[in-house]
Amino acid sequence: MTGPSLSGARTAVVVGAGLAGTLMAIMLAGRGFAVRLHEQRADPRHEDTPGDDRSINLGMSARALYALGTVGLRDTVLALSVPMRGRLIHRERGGDRWQPYGVTPDEILYAVRRRDLNTALLARAAAHPGVRLFFRSRFVGLAKGPKPIVLRFAEGRDGTVRPVEADLVVGADGAFSAVRRAMQHGERADYSQQFLAWGHKELTIPASACVTPRLDLNALHVWPRPSGLVVAHPNRDGSLTATLFLAHEGEPSFSSLTTSSTVRQFFGSTFPEIEALVPELPAQFLSRPNGQLVTVRTRPWYHRDGIVLIGDAAHAVYPFYGQGMNAALEDCVVLDQCLSASPRDVGGAFAHFQWRRKRHTDVLADLSEQNFAEFRDGMRTVGRLLRWRADITLNRLFPERWVPLYTLVSHTTTPYADALLQARRQDRTMALAAAAAGAVAAGATWAALSRGPGTLSGCHRPSLHRRTR
Amino acid sequence: MTGPSLSGARTAVVVGAGLAGTLMAIMLAGRGFAVRLHEQRADPRHEDTPGDDRSINLGMSARALYALGTVGLRDTVLALSVPMRGRLIHRERGGDRWQPYGVTPDEILYAVRRRDLNTALLARAAAHPGVRLFFRSRFVGLAKGPKPIVLRFAEGRDGTVRPVEADLVVGADGAFSAVRRAMQHGERADYSQQFLAWGHKELTIPASACVTPRLDLNALHVWPRPSGLVVAHPNRDGSLTATLFLAHEGEPSFSSLTTSSTVRQFFGSTFPEIEALVPELPAQFLSRPNGQLVTVRTRPWYHRDGIVLIGDAAHAVYPFYGQGMNAALEDCVVLDQCLSASPRDVGGAFAHFQWRRKRHTDVLADLSEQNFAEFRDGMRTVGRLLRWRADITLNRLFPERWVPLYTLVSHTTTPYADALLQARRQDRTMALAAAAAGAVAAGATWAALSRGPGTLSGCHRPSLHRRTR
Repeated sequence: MTGPSLSGARTAVVVGAGLAGTLMAIMLAGRGFAVRLHEQRADPRHEDTPGDDRSINLGMSARALYALGTVGLRDTVLALSVPMRGRLIHRERGGDRWQPYGVTPDEILYAVRRRDLNTALLARAAAHPGVRLFFRSRFVGLAKGPKPIVLRFAEGRDGTVRPVEADLVVGADGAFSAVRRAMQHGERADYSQQFLAWGHKELTIPASACVTPRLDLNALHVWPRPSGLVVAHPNRDGSLTATLFLAHEGEPSFSSLTTSSTVRQFFGSTFPEIEALVPELPAQFLSRPNGQLVTVRTRPWYHRDGIVLIGDAAHAVYPFYGQGMNAALEDCVVLDQCLSASPRDVGGAFAHFQWRRKRHTDVLADLSEQNFAEFRDGMRTVGRLLRWRADITLNRLFPERWVPLYTLVSHTTTPYADALLQARRQDRTMALAAAAAGAVAAGATWAALSRGPGTLSGCHRPSLHRRTR
Repeated sequence: MTGPSLSGARTAVVVGAGLAGTLMAIMLAGRGFAVRLHEQRADPRHEDTPGDDRSINLGMSARALYALGTVGLRDTVLALSVPMRGRLIHRERGGDRWQPYGVTPDEILYAVRRRDLNTALLARAAAHPGVRLFFRSRFVGLAKGPKPIVLRFAEGRDGTVRPVEADLVVGADGAFSAVRRAMQHGERADYSQQFLAWGHKELTIPASACVTPRLDLNALHVWPRPSGLVVAHPNRDGSLTATLFLAHEGEPSFSSLTTSSTVRQFFGSTFPEIEALVPELPAQFLSRPNGQLVTVRTRPWYHRDGIVLIGDAAHAVYPFYGQGMNAALEDCVVLDQCLSASPRDVGGAFAHFQWRRKRHTDVLADLSEQNFAEFRDGMRTVGRLLRWRADITLNRLFPERWVPLYTLVSHTTTPYADALLQARRQDRTMALAAAAAGAVAAGATWAALSRGPGTLSGCHRPSLHRRTR
């Protein structure tokens, strides 16, 4: 985090004080920038601030821990988290299935509340003399002309618009980024947003409910059903934050479940365990907002040497690989490295950042889309389960050479596209090995058959050659 | 165009008086609506209005002619057009290749200037007592609440914003539709825009230049080159409107050709014929704007029973299948049919419209993307040429049962996805026939070989069976 300060670029404005924005602000301050961090919401460090309704509890893995480590926050945040050793799949016909996240003791994930992680990052940013925080400050627009870039923020109760000058602007304002819209306005920018037909809603399982039946607090709990999915992350107070994933429209769906009796009926038939664990379930269900799930792909991620996008603003993904936050924090590491490598050419650093990063987050978007079906179905297909068992076994036998895709994504910092490439090579090896094993078996069978009766004990030897006179 | 008026929905506002918007306004007036047609540009019927710089000359085919026929404009517009019997490919190494658009005399396209077609439609709309026209009236926003929908338009020199009430709103305001943005705001709307790395620029080949060398005025002229593409449509005054397609960035590109000498050099080496045909080429090139090419895919196309999108606002495509305008006018026919089928359920009509139409325009977007490479390469690959010749021959032999994809798209009103399906069936038939022909040939060869020497005259019969004692 130390390095030469950037010549000619002194003031940085970061829009969005979420996870990536706050980490990036700390990193830019470490590079000598005078950083202003603007956030349209209230300060989450104040206990009376309402929580982020969109929140899905987070599973930190290697990438997030590495990124936090670069600013010395790894241990602080680990102390706020709950280790999860694997997934506990609660099957429809009863009986649980345990799926460890890896084969070694350190291949685990850490559950953390978004707000706790954000607060830790904000405390670190606030303590840095190079960072100034501005809450309830809503980005309104910017002028892309010559430097300095002039941004406009609406502030205070009356929404007075104030101009702010910057040499460098970071758009970290999420999937529906206003900075992105302003930056790409009038440009040949590719953009796509795609919503999942399913949304999500948070439900709370209090600590008291987790006692009987005793729920393992060092696991992610998953209740996969054809018509819905519940995932629950453990919290440090012994409670669980459950997220229900359900279709927006149709039957059953968020649209169809609008009364206490329909909600009770749905959980009673589909998720009776959840009904038993969540107190006043219909009231919770009906009072809490529904979240949307969206994939955003876009390019470019930057404008000349002035504006750059990170996190969801550049690449929002579905949450089913548990990597959205990990990828957002990793963006900060890569962007910081690029700025470090070309301190005098910020435009070149931005171009390098997009070149190094975009193909990997594109792959993550694909993997996150594909994992939706996998998660919802709870890996019920025999093929998937066999594949998973083979992966685990081969990884135990050849820990260096055989690493399952999930392990590469979650327990290493191997870039996503490289991880996928390695997994595909392993797939081909497995297919070849299976073919070779089949050929060897066939050869052995043939040899045994050729040697005459008796060699295949217990088997009837078919008459292969009909004798003719 | 006659039919019951829609109960409870009396005022329609159409935003965008381009081709689709104006045709839809006429159709809605025919259904009894009081129609307001708003356009942010000036009235193109006045000769002093500057032309539409984005314009690519249009090739009208069966779909556009059918749509214009429903409001009695077919013959009016045909009189403004130039028939094109096929494409004349001007090859790099000299020599032209003629590709007729079809096999029968009526399988031709009609070149028309966008402005002439638009003017004819506007004259018909202005003559209809149910349509009122508003030029220089820019759509600013709308309130999606309960009926009536309140739209806001900025009008006059001072841009005074005026509210306009409507029961039904049609967004026909192009690829970057402001109506679409307002309609989809806050909704789970899928959206994607993708720019081609190539743009375009119009150049004029005057009538005088077409005399020597004599250019066939009943053809589309195509100069395909690896680094650029020129397409020229004939005009009624004997001139040609040429469109240069070229990369935006790189070498050569619109970015690299910024001086008279670089422009002259580029045309001299890549398009010497064009250099000879276009007077003051560098000046024309440097003074005219570059156009962008974008594919837009989105859903939904409508909001409840109030707002609906047509044309480029719903589905912008690249121009390389020559179907963008044809598809836009066809939208009007399909939407009019849907409104006719459920006059009392406008929301149902909109849903039916999207259901009937979107899968077809999605296919058109794919075909238009794929055709870029085909056009640029001038069908130079042997496979493509053989395929095209086989298609034409089979179409001549079995005119009812074998119809090439291009014919289905351009000379019929078969919906695009159905056309593609039929073409794929034909592909399979051709592959099977080729395999069968191969098998027959192989069988004949085998039989001839088996019958002993002499049956395959001039061939050496290989010794297939070695005799053993």
